[in-house]
Formats: sequence, C-alpha cells, structure tokens
Amino acid sequence: MGSPSLKIVVDAMGGDFAPLNEVAGSLEALRDRKAIEVILVGREEQIRPELAKHNTRGLSVSVVHAPEVITMEDSPTAALKQKKNSSLGVGMNLHKDKKADAFVSAGNTGAVLSASTLILGRIKGVSRPTIGAFFPSEEGVCLLLDAGTNVDCRPQHLYEFAVMGSIYANRIFKYENPPVGLLNIGEEESKGNEVVREAYQLLKNSPLNFVGNVEGRDILRGKVRVVVCDGFVGNAILKFGESVPSFLKAKLLAYAGKSAVRRAMLGLVRGALRSVFKEMDYEEYGGVPVLGVNGVSIIGHGKSTPKAIKNMILKAVEVAEANVNQHIQDMLAGVVVRPADAVIPAHE
Amino acid sequence: MGSPSLKIVVDAMGGDFAPLNEVAGSLEALRDRKAIEVILVGREEQIRPELAKHNTRGLSVSVVHAPEVITMEDSPTAALKQKKNSSLGVGMNLHKDKKADAFVSAGNTGAVLSASTLILGRIKGVSRPTIGAFFPSEEGVCLLLDAGTNVDCRPQHLYEFAVMGSIYANRIFKYENPPVGLLNIGEEESKGNEVVREAYQLLKNSPLNFVGNVEGRDILRGKVRVVVCDGFVGNAILKFGESVPSFLKAKLLAYAGKSAVRRAMLGLVRGALRSVFKEMDYEEYGGVPVLGVNGVSIIGHGKSTPKAIKNMILKAVEVAEANVNQHIQDMLAGVVVRPADAVIPAHE
Repeated sequence: MGSPSLKIVVDAMGGDFAPLNEVAGSLEALRDRKAIEVILVGREEQIRPELAKHNTRGLSVSVVHAPEVITMEDSPTAALKQKKNSSLGVGMNLHKDKKADAFVSAGNTGAVLSASTLILGRIKGVSRPTIGAFFPSEEGVCLLLDAGTNVDCRPQHLYEFAVMGSIYANRIFKYENPPVGLLNIGEEESKGNEVVREAYQLLKNSPLNFVGNVEGRDILRGKVRVVVCDGFVGNAILKFGESVPSFLKAKLLAYAGKSAVRRAMLGLVRGALRSVFKEMDYEEYGGVPVLGVNGVSIIGHGKSTPKAIKNMILKAVEVAEANVNQHIQDMLAGVVVRPADAVIPAHE
Repeated sequence: MGSPSLKIVVDAMGGDFAPLNEVAGSLEALRDRKAIEVILVGREEQIRPELAKHNTRGLSVSVVHAPEVITMEDSPTAALKQKKNSSLGVGMNLHKDKKADAFVSAGNTGAVLSASTLILGRIKGVSRPTIGAFFPSEEGVCLLLDAGTNVDCRPQHLYEFAVMGSIYANRIFKYENPPVGLLNIGEEESKGNEVVREAYQLLKNSPLNFVGNVEGRDILRGKVRVVVCDGFVGNAILKFGESVPSFLKAKLLAYAGKSAVRRAMLGLVRGALRSVFKEMDYEEYGGVPVLGVNGVSIIGHGKSTPKAIKNMILKAVEVAEANVNQHIQDMLAGVVVRPADAVIPAHE
C-alpha cells in the first residue's frame, strides 16, 4: 500500500463504441481498484461529456487531449506518421515518458502493435514483439503465440516467443514451470519444415520446460500451457477456433428444425455452451498483451464492452506489477534459469 | 449396366482391426453394390477364415495372397522397399497393372501415400500429390488441402491443390463451379507471406472460381467449397478441429458436475451434438483420396469400422466412375476451362 499508485493510459478513442465504453469501463475499473489512476487520452470535447454522465467522486481519472483518431480502416504505420496527435500516439508517448505505467486500447490492432514497437521499443534480446491468443483447454489456459503478428518466423523468433509465453504463463497465470510445446505436424523430432526442426533444437537446449512437438489437437487438451508457432499458422487456428461457437449454433438450430421439443432442449443447453465458450471469450481475459516491448501495452477487441475495457485495465495493472518484461529480459540474457524461479520475487 | 464391373483392391491388412473389419466392410459394400468386385489382398491364412464366417454367396470377392504387412510404426518409404510383398505393395501394383480400378487402405497413411505416388506415378501436370481433409460447414462441405502431406509449398503447388480440390468438389460433391479460397491472415491481396501472395496471383489469373483470400474462420462458414494452404497449416487446423468434440464433451461434463438436472440435460443434448459431429466424422465420407496420382487411392483411418471400410469402397467406385484424374489433367493442361464445365460428360 505504500507504493505509489499505478497509472494506466486508456486510449479513449480506440474501440467501436469510443469514448462511451472506454469511459464507462475505466470508471468500473477505478471502482474495483481504488488505488490506481486512469488517464483518458482523446478528444476532450467528447470525453468530458461522457464523464459528466457518471459519478466520479473519489476516482482518480484525468483527461489528456489528443485531437486525432486512428480508425480501424487506417493503415497502421502510415496512420502513426500522418496523425501525430492521435490518441494512440499521444497515449503511448505518455507511457514511454514514464508518465504512466501501462497503455490500453481497443483500437486498430495493427496500429497499436506498431505504436508499441516503434514508440516503446523492444526489450533487450527480443527480435520481434508478439501478440498471442488465449485458448481454453480441458485443463487451464493455453497461450498460443504468435497469433498473426509475425509471418515467416525464423527459429530464433519461435524460441523467443517460447520464452515470452513461459514468463507470461508463469507470472500472470501462475503456472509453475509451464510446459511449452512446439506446434508441428507430428511428435517426432524429425517432423516438419526446416524452421521448426531448428527451433526444436533451440528449445531442447533451453532452460524452458520444453515438452517437444505438439499437434493442433494438443491446444485444447491442456497438456501444455504455451504453444509456439509461426504467426500464419497461429492466426489460422485462432480464427478457426473463434468460428466454432457460431458454427455449432447454426448446426444445432438446423438440428432442432421445427420440433418444439428439440427447440426447448436447445434453450436448455444454451447456458451450458455459453459457459464453455465464455472461457474462449478473450474479453474475459482482459485483452491480449503486446509481448516483447519496453512497456505494458494491452490490446482489446474493437467491440469491447465497458466490462472488457475494465478487464483490460485490470490486466494491465497485473502485468505491470508482475514485472513481466524484466523477467523476459533476464531469461533471454540467461540470468533467470527457468520460469519457475520467477515465482521467487526478484525484482519487486 | 453394360459396362464391365469395377474392381476394387482392399488392403486387407491395413487397419488396426485387420483383416476382420476389412473383410466385413468389403462384404457390406458388395451387398450394397452388387455390380462391383472386391479383391482382398493380404495374408490368405488370415483372410480366408474371416471370409468363412460370412455368407458370400453371389458376391464377387476374391483373395490375392501377400505375406508381408506394413504396420503403423513402419517408416513409409523404408517399409515399401524392405517389404516387397506387403499387402500395400502387392495391392497397389494390381491397380497399377490395371487388374483393378481403385485401391483402398486403412493402413499407415504415409506408406499408402508413398506407395500411391511411387507405384502409380503422378498425373501429368501435378508436381505434388496431396491429401485433403473434409470439414462440415454451416452450408455444405469444405475441402481443405493440403492437410499435412506437403510442408513448404511453393505457389505453384497451392495452385495445383486448388485445381485438384475444385475438380473433386465438382465431380464428387456435385458443386457447380466451386468457390475456392486461399487461406491467409487477412482478406487483402497484400496480406501474408511471399508464397501466398504469389499463389494469389496464380489463382486470380486462373479459370478457377477464386474468391480471394479467406481466413481460418471461413472454413466452417461455408462460403467456400475449397480452401488451399500449406500442409503445415492445414494439418494444424485439421487436428485442432478434430479435438473440438472431446474438448466440448469434457467441458460440458465439468459444467454438469454432480447436478442431476444438468446431467439429464446433457444426455438430451448428446444426440444433437452427435449429429453435428457426425458430419465431421470422416469415416462417413468414406476416407480421403490421394489426389494427383495416376489412379484411385483412398485412405481411411486406422480404426476404420466395417461401415467405414464399406464407405471407402463405395467412395473409390464413385471417384473411379467420375473420371476425376482425367479432369485434373485436362484442367492443368488448359483443356477444360473451368470445373463447372466438367459437369458436361466429356470422358464418360
């Protein structure tokens, strides 16, 4: 309690329902965690009227004006150059200048990634920052990375993803010495293309808890906590997985047809399926972190609800407190032997 | 009816329950389609006693002895060389020598693929034979290829997969001018790695019904009938998809817990889910074809039931009758302009 409260920058213009959901979600987070501060960055003339709709007494919320907005349609790198005063750029620079401890946005994913990398810079030892995806499994969470940020990965990149994923799974999901798998088309060491065969050797000789090659089926099985792959593959699996709920819904509706009994039954089962897919809903996870940059940058879905924004802010606090980046840097430098050791507070 | 009956070679030693299921399934197929003949290839001393258990009167079934067996553990290419008299090798050669019109096996997939390619040879114009996977979708079937046979594909390979998939979807699934998608991490033409960007151009300038890039989510959505990708990606998606039913089952059981009401509800919904996943059960599809070889070679799951074997045989008959290979060759040579034209009988 003696430590200074953490400050979180929220890109108030990021999501599809900005700044409405950003403001509401920020206030929800502040009510949940009174010790933090939120800095809403964006068009003051839009943010202030939203804030005025709420009771903000006792909550540490401030507004920093940024007149420009990067939209979902903008080209990530071009937009950052052209719109110098965007909420994304201004907000990220506040974090870079240590005026805030973390950054949160439900905006253009590519632009947030670019801004994170270009403005915050990479962690020493990281070649390519990465964004992962969380999958539910029969037991616990599985972090798949890269989920689409990096195509054409080299073996070293996959190794770094494994390190970043292990640290994250350990520090944030509290898995001790999390098992790491290398996605391949078979379990044998000789399987796959040249990149994964070389990555296998790097991982085998690393201090990570590397269990060897895993296959697509092992993601939902829960036998590993971290799965590494090229972003092309990871993105295809992530999007395939995201399409399963609506596929099932359509198929079950077709199965029910006009039968009243079957329709009633589906009504019953909807709750069950919803509870299963809730775990797959990354809004519940509080967004996904950009791993490998010198800071805490959390990206959420464009359609983020106030609850999702709240969870992103709370996640940002958690990541900042857990000192994930220092652990990644140490491990890549060989200082920390394995992620399990990271449980022993070394930097706090 | 005037045409001579088609002869199908069945690798009687292929599956995990060989020759029991192979014999039973073959007889089921013959009862279904009296006009065909089945040649069971394998250890005569094991096949004959199985046959003796059934009433085979009026069914055209014969046995060709082959003393050796390639197991699931055998290395595909080594096994073919070392076991010259395997049921797989002997059977495939019968097909090659035109003593049979198709070959069916529930054995070692890699070995069947190797034997198909090495013994039958490739169709003119095909660089790499391929094995696809069938996915159910919100509407119709989606054929994904390559599903794991070829990693490190070049753009030309992806183009050829698209041609083979289109012909198969047209001739076997009866889709007119089937829409083809290129799996990528986004819809824009500029997305992805160099291979897919080049493949995009090949496909755009082809006579295929190319709809552009598709994402992982589009497989189950049913907007395309054929999706092409590198075998590494295809295999990961296939295996991820195969793991969905058991994941759901585990999650729903956990959801039900000890509640009698919820458990009863799950009992009700099981039928619905089973009907959905039945479509995903490739035994129902009658195995998957090796596309691009000079012949008809159908591969089934090692655990194939008699029903699955029967369906594989019937599928082999269908593929042989549909003249799929000639259509592939013609299209790659530019003779047939688009798969829809193939509906007009040109070779029958």
